[in-house]
Amino acid sequence: MIRDLIIKNRSYRRFDQSVSIPVAKLREWVELARFSASGRNMQPLRYVLCTSENICREIFPNLAWAGYLTDWDGPEEGERPAAYIVVIHDKNLSENYFCDDGIAAQSILLGAVEDGFGGCIIGSVNRSKVARILQLDPRHEILWVIALGKPTEQVVLEDVSNGEIKYWRDRHGIHHVPKRILEEIILSEK
Amino acid sequence: MIRDLIIKNRSYRRFDQSVSIPVAKLREWVELARFSASGRNMQPLRYVLCTSENICREIFPNLAWAGYLTDWDGPEEGERPAAYIVVIHDKNLSENYFCDDGIAAQSILLGAVEDGFGGCIIGSVNRSKVARILQLDPRHEILWVIALGKPTEQVVLEDVSNGEIKYWRDRHGIHHVPKRILEEIILSEK
Repeated sequence: MIRDLIIKNRSYRRFDQSVSIPVAKLREWVELARFSASGRNMQPLRYVLCTSENICREIFPNLAWAGYLTDWDGPEEGERPAAYIVVIHDKNLSENYFCDDGIAAQSILLGAVEDGFGGCIIGSVNRSKVARILQLDPRHEILWVIALGKPTEQVVLEDVSNGEIKYWRDRHGIHHVPKRILEEIILSEK
Repeated sequence: MIRDLIIKNRSYRRFDQSVSIPVAKLREWVELARFSASGRNMQPLRYVLCTSENICREIFPNLAWAGYLTDWDGPEEGERPAAYIVVIHDKNLSENYFCDDGIAAQSILLGAVEDGFGGCIIGSVNRSKVARILQLDPRHEILWVIALGKPTEQVVLEDVSNGEIKYWRDRHGIHHVPKRILEEIILSEK
């Protein structure tokens, strides 16, 4: 059931760093993005697959983690991502990428979760530095960095109450994510 | 396997209009979007679910279909969508919706396909007219209209050759969608 897989696909930010991910797996997940819808079928997204320890170590300091957890600086050595997929827009191909980026990211992460891994779409990225590390051409604009690994944290969904949407971590380290209820997000039925 | 579901989830544009979709199904699919990732967990997307014949008839003329099929004006009476989910950004909640829209659309469509339906994300929308039909508040900006129904057309994926990405329909009415090969979309592996 897709429902189970979507519920299992949480934003994971702590991993067992000793579990590496074969690059062949990353290719399979990007293939899921390749098979997904693209506005005007232009397919202007590109991917850089990062699995080597060296490149992961270089990328890591250029990412910001979980803005709402103000007393947490991100995963420590040992619990960091084992791989990254950098999602890129080829500006020479099209001005617009519609909602291709979210479609692709969701396909990639659903594939990862089905395979026993998981990840997090990171938007707070020092893009110019990561572009330099990856030696990207100026036509290639970094949109998102998907951090991937073997999750070691528990993430639970709960209904929003009192309008509070900030995720939080309890004293057992369980990460709680409040989701707005259906009655709030469905404006009307016609 | 998520791969099979993603491959089955094509952009369908012709449906058996006599097969209606219960609004309860649309709610289930929107719930999949509700469970999906959201940038900063802000969840600024809203949905209007349209299933009545009247509202579908009003929305239809405000959508443009399959830009590359220049000799086709869109689905005829009898093969039109049985429902629409209008994806909306609540501008009062956040300026930015990151890639939430694509994530949500993909979750909704994967749910629909698993349930034996299918659809198409339409970006070419007369937004001001649809907003008027739906009596939307100015804070609610229409992003995409997801057309839904029981697909009656066959859509096949093939590899891009000679750089030609335009989809096309053969004389048997089969819709062909060229996808760029993995070697083109993966820039590098590091």
